[in-house]
Amino acid sequence: MQELIEKALSGHTRSIARLITLVENESPYTEEIMKTLYPHSGNAHIVGITGSPGAGKSTLTDKLIHTFKNSGKKVGVIAVDPSSPFTGGAILADRIRMQKHAVDPNVYIRSMGSRGSLGGLSKSTYEAALILDSCGNDIIFIETVGVGQSEVDIMKIADTVCLVLVPGMGDDIQIMKAGIMEIADIFVINKADREGVERVVAEVRMALDLAGKRSWVPPVHSTIAEKNTGIEELTHSITNHSEFLSISREGLERKKKRLIIEVEEILQREIARFTEEKWDQQKTPDLIDALYQRKTDPYTVAGRMLEQILMNN
Amino acid sequence: MQELIEKALSGHTRSIARLITLVENESPYTEEIMKTLYPHSGNAHIVGITGSPGAGKSTLTDKLIHTFKNSGKKVGVIAVDPSSPFTGGAILADRIRMQKHAVDPNVYIRSMGSRGSLGGLSKSTYEAALILDSCGNDIIFIETVGVGQSEVDIMKIADTVCLVLVPGMGDDIQIMKAGIMEIADIFVINKADREGVERVVAEVRMALDLAGKRSWVPPVHSTIAEKNTGIEELTHSITNHSEFLSISREGLERKKKRLIIEVEEILQREIARFTEEKWDQQKTPDLIDALYQRKTDPYTVAGRMLEQILMNN
Repeated sequence: MQELIEKALSGHTRSIARLITLVENESPYTEEIMKTLYPHSGNAHIVGITGSPGAGKSTLTDKLIHTFKNSGKKVGVIAVDPSSPFTGGAILADRIRMQKHAVDPNVYIRSMGSRGSLGGLSKSTYEAALILDSCGNDIIFIETVGVGQSEVDIMKIADTVCLVLVPGMGDDIQIMKAGIMEIADIFVINKADREGVERVVAEVRMALDLAGKRSWVPPVHSTIAEKNTGIEELTHSITNHSEFLSISREGLERKKKRLIIEVEEILQREIARFTEEKWDQQKTPDLIDALYQRKTDPYTVAGRMLEQILMNN
Repeated sequence: MQELIEKALSGHTRSIARLITLVENESPYTEEIMKTLYPHSGNAHIVGITGSPGAGKSTLTDKLIHTFKNSGKKVGVIAVDPSSPFTGGAILADRIRMQKHAVDPNVYIRSMGSRGSLGGLSKSTYEAALILDSCGNDIIFIETVGVGQSEVDIMKIADTVCLVLVPGMGDDIQIMKAGIMEIADIFVINKADREGVERVVAEVRMALDLAGKRSWVPPVHSTIAEKNTGIEELTHSITNHSEFLSISREGLERKKKRLIIEVEEILQREIARFTEEKWDQQKTPDLIDALYQRKTDPYTVAGRMLEQILMNN
């Protein structure tokens, strides 16, 4: 394993891919991999690209890959596919377009499912980002076909969150996004050749005003990704935000906060696994019948188990 | 507290409202309330109404309230509002229309936020449903302004899930729903006077065919909720599904599975709370600095804490 990790650290693409596959399949090596790579991480700029389905996120990411690659950066991309909670299947759609970069040694693209935590980013997304970070990538894009949870989750992983909106999506949907407004560092109004672009821009600015003063004021960009329009300005904003994070107190706070969340998530995951095992042993048909007949209740059953698990604390 | 619970059990609306407020605010009485009510629960038919924003779910729910009330049922409604993860604010929109039922003693309507579990249904949604169930409601509608997680969560609470779609929502969105298809017991194509209704119906049926054989074949209804069109047929399907559940093996299995999930969720919540407390004590600035400087890693830190917590198991 250490040999494989060494090769990945030296930038060997196939070894990197192997490592990601291992953590994705929850291999028992996961912890060893992550522990060994960890000291090498923390150098990449992690950029989340999120927004409604159909907003053109893949095309946008594709153009950004280009720009950053051309400026001499090593680029990693994680494209998160929404999975069915039942089949675990993933949707690829126009992600395929991105694959033309796949032969480029300075670009590494990986598609990952979101199964594991329904609707949200799975733990392997975080792990894959850390692998790409440790193994010499300068910038990592994480594209989430975002509805709901994954848009919130991306904030926990990314240094910079780009929220992609499009004109003419209907008020309801825009309103729905109200909460999500607050997670974005950069706004992108894509497909800006469509009608209604000024209105969306105005709405976003208004929402930002309502959100109050912050030391980083999220810029609002209009782009037409397909025609490469507005990409350069967006690139500048992404780089600016990275610089802002590296010199500001907020940047440091954000990084530290993320470390706290990382420990927390590992803890909760491990404890959940432990609890599940215990519960698996205890959920006998008799107990379920007792619950069903209302002879006992879930609170009493859970309370008893908790006492056992945490007895000595 | 027992007095308040007794009054609620006898159907006293204001006492029921008080209980829901208590669990919503995570009062220390929550466990007592839930344990006392639990033996009285299990009689109501819980119906989830979910679907994209703008699908007309509130209008549909409004019409269904009418129909069931007129057939002599006591109706409870929980309208779940999407909250901003930051402000906790809730969107009411055309929910207000429903409020005309509020003066009716046989209809109880409650708006609840989804804060607590981001994007998903909060634990108080489940608890409120159980309160309404215990306190004599025959049918309970839970309307979720569903994107992402809440549409998956609704399956854990509802006996019958109605998925509301509309024609002309764009292919991307429909594809996104692929996973969600599998949670629905009844499909409703609302706003059926719009163009493209046949196509959506056909798509849904195709998706159902692909999903394979099940003993309950989800019916696909076209409705125009605003004009009351198709509501009667939908009402029949809802009642049919309730009957199907009460006589079939699947109904029993589903109820038992839900009990298992209930215990599991309480367990995980309590353990998360416990872990958080422990972690709060341990996350000193020194430790965070050590993490930040890569002198240690989250896996090692979490591992050490786990050992402490679960030492004697």
